[in-house]
Amino acid sequence: MQAQFITLDGIDGAGKSTNLQVIRNWFATHNLPVYFTREPGGTMLGEALRDILLNPATRAGLRTETLLMFAARQQHLDEIILPKLEAGIHVVSDRFTDATFAYQGGGRGVPLPDIEILENWVQGNLRPNLTLLLDVPLEVSMSRISQAREKDRFEQEQAEFFTRVREVYLKRAASSPEHYAIIDSNRPLEHVRQNIENTLARHFGIAA
Amino acid sequence: MQAQFITLDGIDGAGKSTNLQVIRNWFATHNLPVYFTREPGGTMLGEALRDILLNPATRAGLRTETLLMFAARQQHLDEIILPKLEAGIHVVSDRFTDATFAYQGGGRGVPLPDIEILENWVQGNLRPNLTLLLDVPLEVSMSRISQAREKDRFEQEQAEFFTRVREVYLKRAASSPEHYAIIDSNRPLEHVRQNIENTLARHFGIAA
Repeated sequence: MQAQFITLDGIDGAGKSTNLQVIRNWFATHNLPVYFTREPGGTMLGEALRDILLNPATRAGLRTETLLMFAARQQHLDEIILPKLEAGIHVVSDRFTDATFAYQGGGRGVPLPDIEILENWVQGNLRPNLTLLLDVPLEVSMSRISQAREKDRFEQEQAEFFTRVREVYLKRAASSPEHYAIIDSNRPLEHVRQNIENTLARHFGIAA
Repeated sequence: MQAQFITLDGIDGAGKSTNLQVIRNWFATHNLPVYFTREPGGTMLGEALRDILLNPATRAGLRTETLLMFAARQQHLDEIILPKLEAGIHVVSDRFTDATFAYQGGGRGVPLPDIEILENWVQGNLRPNLTLLLDVPLEVSMSRISQAREKDRFEQEQAEFFTRVREVYLKRAASSPEHYAIIDSNRPLEHVRQNIENTLARHFGIAA
């Protein structure tokens, strides 16, 4: 089996941080070589762009932001993801292009075909082998966000916004079920953990 | 006449700085409202991206760099160029998309059709009404660069590189002569000045 490119995605408050640890533990248990990374960020350039995007003084417009997301992604692919995969190391990325479709597209209105143009420009034919999409109802994600963290620029957006974001995530998963696993994250943690472990075991052909 | 979008471009050492002053003086003399800007830069975001690009530690790859150029350009258009034009103010930009075709494309090898994809993504149908292309033979530009400035990352490249850059500039000008004026910058300053002034006068329908 070739090294696999796996992404974890979903709306804010869907429980990515908690479940990343589940994924880490699963790879450790099965002694599989793996590299964990995240977007935006993951490279020095990505972190610098992240600072720019989160700084309101730069007033990055929506289309500018979308280009910067893909610039960070290009660097992330060239500097980290592709070299790791070529070295036979599985890669797990906390967010990837689905997030751009969901947030900049569904949430903020960049036409999805415009995002596809940049996806093809940056990724060529590369797509994640498996995307774990953590899904929770809007009320759950909203309440988790308001408890857990300071709201940053993206998180200050409204419920309507997150509804559109979630819709795009779910549509993308539905349109390509062989590459997406929708994980219902509105269940007890233990149940979510088993769901993720079973999904990974099935993907890697390992007995759960 | 609608507000005009004019760009000044050409290889390093072609004399852009000197001749920008000629253009400034011409607009002042004719009392035309004009805004001068530059790429990369021109906005706070553009300046921040310029710092990132010039910092070798970020190791921006060629395709990443190209996306960042267009992100800066998108912001430049949305924040400055389009609002000025809509307000009836002419805009003169020191470099624009021709430079990306010439440097990232001709010079460094990004396929020109890939650059066209981003040009269309960012600019839609917008193209400069007039591009003043300052042209000098390679030997002249190289000697001007080495006299005048510290070499930065771009300027350390080789003569072969600048030959390819210049070729793309000249081809683009030749393919669309109604929008380009090639200014032979290897002439006495006074002659270059007159050439630029005549070109602007003709473009604006003003007696020189």
